[in-house]
Amino acid sequence: MASNLVKAGHEVTVFNRSREKARTLVGQGARAADDIASACTGDAVITMLADDNAVDSIVFGKAGVIDSLGRNAVHVSMSTISVALSERLAAAHEKARQRYLAAPVFGRPEAAAAAKLFILVSGAPEAADTCAPIFAALGQKTFRIGHRPAAANLVKLSGNFLIAAVIESLGEAIALVSKAGIDKHEYMEMLTSTLFAAPVYKNYGGMIADEKYEPAGFAAPLGQKDIRLTLAAAEALRVPMPLASLLRDRFLALMAQGGEKLDWSGIAKLAAKDTGQA
Amino acid sequence: MASNLVKAGHEVTVFNRSREKARTLVGQGARAADDIASACTGDAVITMLADDNAVDSIVFGKAGVIDSLGRNAVHVSMSTISVALSERLAAAHEKARQRYLAAPVFGRPEAAAAAKLFILVSGAPEAADTCAPIFAALGQKTFRIGHRPAAANLVKLSGNFLIAAVIESLGEAIALVSKAGIDKHEYMEMLTSTLFAAPVYKNYGGMIADEKYEPAGFAAPLGQKDIRLTLAAAEALRVPMPLASLLRDRFLALMAQGGEKLDWSGIAKLAAKDTGQA
Repeated sequence: MASNLVKAGHEVTVFNRSREKARTLVGQGARAADDIASACTGDAVITMLADDNAVDSIVFGKAGVIDSLGRNAVHVSMSTISVALSERLAAAHEKARQRYLAAPVFGRPEAAAAAKLFILVSGAPEAADTCAPIFAALGQKTFRIGHRPAAANLVKLSGNFLIAAVIESLGEAIALVSKAGIDKHEYMEMLTSTLFAAPVYKNYGGMIADEKYEPAGFAAPLGQKDIRLTLAAAEALRVPMPLASLLRDRFLALMAQGGEKLDWSGIAKLAAKDTGQA
Repeated sequence: MASNLVKAGHEVTVFNRSREKARTLVGQGARAADDIASACTGDAVITMLADDNAVDSIVFGKAGVIDSLGRNAVHVSMSTISVALSERLAAAHEKARQRYLAAPVFGRPEAAAAAKLFILVSGAPEAADTCAPIFAALGQKTFRIGHRPAAANLVKLSGNFLIAAVIESLGEAIALVSKAGIDKHEYMEMLTSTLFAAPVYKNYGGMIADEKYEPAGFAAPLGQKDIRLTLAAAEALRVPMPLASLLRDRFLALMAQGGEKLDWSGIAKLAAKDTGQA
């Protein structure tokens, strides 16, 4: 993503806790910052981190984003984080007279590299307008999800819930037909050329039929985290989600059984294992 | 479907327990049979009925299909029926020196009218070859699912399970985002133009966002039946399917709450109702 910003002609300063990771970008024309504060001197600062804890420490820590960002500059928070943290960020930036946009994305690493992300943006429309060139450099399409900053985070989480539901349903269906002696690959070929001609079915159905869960494109603990955050948001809003609760248990079982390094589609192994097939 | 067979130049004799329903077809060039036996005098007889009971009585009843069909003629069973009944049909036709194909379909009534069905065929390859012109007249594509006659029935049931899983997941996701004040239609527009660009998401997501569950394209009791048959096949094969079990309870709750006449996507009402929104 940083590389695509450089390519689009933006002046980009990069900061990563592991210095190594910034080196390639410097070769491409980015400037490396020595600390968080030095990465917060521009019109906007983008954060893209693994989870709530990482964002929290970078933003609220001493000499972090809140302490360092200029007045009226925009924090574009692109990580998949909780609705609660996003609301806390919005309030803190407002208090510090900074602007805040939630801008989580859909797309695996290949999509990020190819600037083909889908970007969900919520926050003040003027801030979203200001940052439109950034989004244009990173993604194929931007969706405005309204003014309430946490709306985009909720929609992002719900999207990951929907994908996890696809994985679970395919895991169960493939376990069923394969125990009846039907070829798993022919089965997926039939499904994805008829009712389910969407990339998400092709990608995950292929991985499940191949039983190929490594290397992880999106690791199981990240999937587990997103279902946890979906359920946390649902709890706050008083929304029972029985399927999300089922998915929660699948992810916990996968991680309990040594699946920490597997792709999140590894929950499909559990359906197969239950049948005595794996 | 009968109309498409007539159009394709086949000699078609039709039988329906309600005479009325055959009248239009007679106008198009089909011959009306007075009883089941008179509809079984050709090279093949096609059955397309609501459930196991209807197929059972038509096939095994006195002067039914087994009693009437000629030696070596083919019974093409296109209904969505249980794996167990399909196996019983295969055995009975073999004993009577008749041939049997399971050929359930994917496609709503509009697809049937437009000869755009997807047809899943299992049974003896020679019988499938013999009936290829029939399938060509009815569908856009035929998939051979192997020799074991019940394989196509199992795959068909698993497909309906996958669709019901889509409905449940969308029901929960839409209940979640809409309780947070996000526009349901914009939400579905975003999803179906990005990750979930498949007709099944567009159709059902649209119905759920519109809360339009009538008239039923595929009624809730038929959905409930298919999940029951999926779970029955899974039980026989010793395949635990927690998501299918959850769907079973959703369909039972919908029917208990007066949803018999709703489309099967009406299970999404339950997720909304649980949140106090419906």
